[in-house]
Amino acid sequence: MTTPNTARPHADSKPSVPIADLQRFISRVLTAVGMPGEDAATVGGIMAQADARGADAHGVFRLPAYVKRIRAGGINLHPDMRLVEERAATALLDGDNAMGHLVMKRAADLAIGKARRAGIGWVGTRHSNHAGPAGLYARMPLEHGMIGIYMAVGSANHMPPWGGIDMLLSTNPIAIAVPAANRPPIVLDMATTTAAYGKVKALAQRGQAMPEGWMVGRDGKPLLDPKRSDEGFLLPIGGPKGYGLALMFGILAGALNGAAFGRDVVDFNKDYKSVTNTGQAVAAIDVTAFMPMAQFEACIDDIWTQMKSSELLPGVEEIRLPGEQSAITYEDRVANGVPLHPELIAALDALALDVGVHALL
Amino acid sequence: MTTPNTARPHADSKPSVPIADLQRFISRVLTAVGMPGEDAATVGGIMAQADARGADAHGVFRLPAYVKRIRAGGINLHPDMRLVEERAATALLDGDNAMGHLVMKRAADLAIGKARRAGIGWVGTRHSNHAGPAGLYARMPLEHGMIGIYMAVGSANHMPPWGGIDMLLSTNPIAIAVPAANRPPIVLDMATTTAAYGKVKALAQRGQAMPEGWMVGRDGKPLLDPKRSDEGFLLPIGGPKGYGLALMFGILAGALNGAAFGRDVVDFNKDYKSVTNTGQAVAAIDVTAFMPMAQFEACIDDIWTQMKSSELLPGVEEIRLPGEQSAITYEDRVANGVPLHPELIAALDALALDVGVHALL
Repeated sequence: MTTPNTARPHADSKPSVPIADLQRFISRVLTAVGMPGEDAATVGGIMAQADARGADAHGVFRLPAYVKRIRAGGINLHPDMRLVEERAATALLDGDNAMGHLVMKRAADLAIGKARRAGIGWVGTRHSNHAGPAGLYARMPLEHGMIGIYMAVGSANHMPPWGGIDMLLSTNPIAIAVPAANRPPIVLDMATTTAAYGKVKALAQRGQAMPEGWMVGRDGKPLLDPKRSDEGFLLPIGGPKGYGLALMFGILAGALNGAAFGRDVVDFNKDYKSVTNTGQAVAAIDVTAFMPMAQFEACIDDIWTQMKSSELLPGVEEIRLPGEQSAITYEDRVANGVPLHPELIAALDALALDVGVHALL
Repeated sequence: MTTPNTARPHADSKPSVPIADLQRFISRVLTAVGMPGEDAATVGGIMAQADARGADAHGVFRLPAYVKRIRAGGINLHPDMRLVEERAATALLDGDNAMGHLVMKRAADLAIGKARRAGIGWVGTRHSNHAGPAGLYARMPLEHGMIGIYMAVGSANHMPPWGGIDMLLSTNPIAIAVPAANRPPIVLDMATTTAAYGKVKALAQRGQAMPEGWMVGRDGKPLLDPKRSDEGFLLPIGGPKGYGLALMFGILAGALNGAAFGRDVVDFNKDYKSVTNTGQAVAAIDVTAFMPMAQFEACIDDIWTQMKSSELLPGVEEIRLPGEQSAITYEDRVANGVPLHPELIAALDALALDVGVHALL
């Protein structure tokens, strides 16, 4: 006898995995396919954080694809990252085709160090790779009393310029993270398209239709069947405005760094071998270069309170702040582990068997 | 006999005013109400540039309201601007309630100087005022071989947090400007709301309805009559995403600088006397801190070409890049002057008479 999903929306039946176990599993899989142990531990830690924060499409879910890319030779496991350019507040980091997580961790650390001295640090990357959720890197400056900003060229083009049908742009995301005192940090983490491509694929798996406004076909008409997503493209938020944002974030994170943009972007879901030359940018702003930390954090707490106390539209239960849901998820998953879909567990079991390591559970 | 607007959309009958005449007129009006000559010339130059670039709602159109504010004591004509905080790549500038144009010109100059040495310069402002179009300040770094970024807390709240009805947020705009070689710079200049409030007021003047998606009433239902705009509020682009962008740009441009945000924002259309404590932020990024200028500019030209050469959706004539229309308008207005509506001319004539200076025409 099966329990229909609709009757048990909270999926109590999903096994939950402690975050530390998830990190160790990811690390041993990556070590097994040749990644040096210290790097594998770092990537495992960051990927497990993605799951802990609720970015389920950017954590351990990606591990099979990463392994496929590593085995195809599409990732450099012994990279020699180097600073191509450097000034007091900026740097350009060449990731030498390392895992994106390693490149971005290094870039964020650099930006934080520069911000401590110069007030702001801005580090661009080239020859990087997919690095998981934007929000993670914007969050890194938080524990140093800094604001974080992250932009990236997405790892596959799914959007044309406004009015066109050639897919020259990706979902180029932005994340901005701001520390608070007694509230969770405010963390915006968004694609410049109405929906991320992962959400389309999730609906396709479930056999559900997309809402109007997510995608259109090459005829400009709404595309509602997610299984036909190859025939259409994602729409930007706010029409030409979202197109403009995707273009600009792509220039700042890609073109400025000598990374791929436009026709040069490699679709990482279709090509596992080519160097993607992914570009990202991360900035850290030291709050104390503007005002005392306690004053700023109190101000952000007050903004929380103001927004939460707004009168509500009919039918709305609560105002949310960006990052609020992620904070609730984090607290739950730190206490209770990360719930994983049985299909994902099966895929990870197969992966463990394949690379010859202990399974996750 | 009158010619209906619909038959003559290009309004050949509008008088056109050379940009230099516009600048001189603005300067002499501001001088007449007590602004020191050099400051009046600077503000006149910036405001005339707004008109030249096609930002018609942000140029000379605003002069009567600025004069009203100056006369009400809402602007400090003899400001003592000072740097509250400064590091190698950042500064916080207190504008001492000067005209926003003067504060932002100073802030942009500072950011450019810092970027030349440190790679990036980020300058925040407090006790500033409405400064006209965002794009003008993002453009200032261009002629120094730099990328410009500008954000501001808008000068009146027209948007609630997503799901709410208390208007705690403004249209908080962002502008990003990137230099090209043989093409115009790419310049994004956008409000985080679907429509700027000025567009609503323009439709009200013409007695036309708003499209769905611009505003909703306090019941959450579409508000289409622009004359009833006081009963509703603007919608963010992309729903919660635009709310998140408005919130974050407001924090970066306002809260971080100790400027007004949320309930503290003074509605500059209703209150001409109170210190607005407007906050803005401008950043300059020196392209040569990342790659040789010629290489970057060629890359931006190539991006132009890629976007323009995309196949088109049915019914679309041409792909546009952000800033393209403004460049076309600018070229035309430099050659032929700025066309002004007869109603605006009449208002400016009345203003000239009122302050005792020669009329514009």
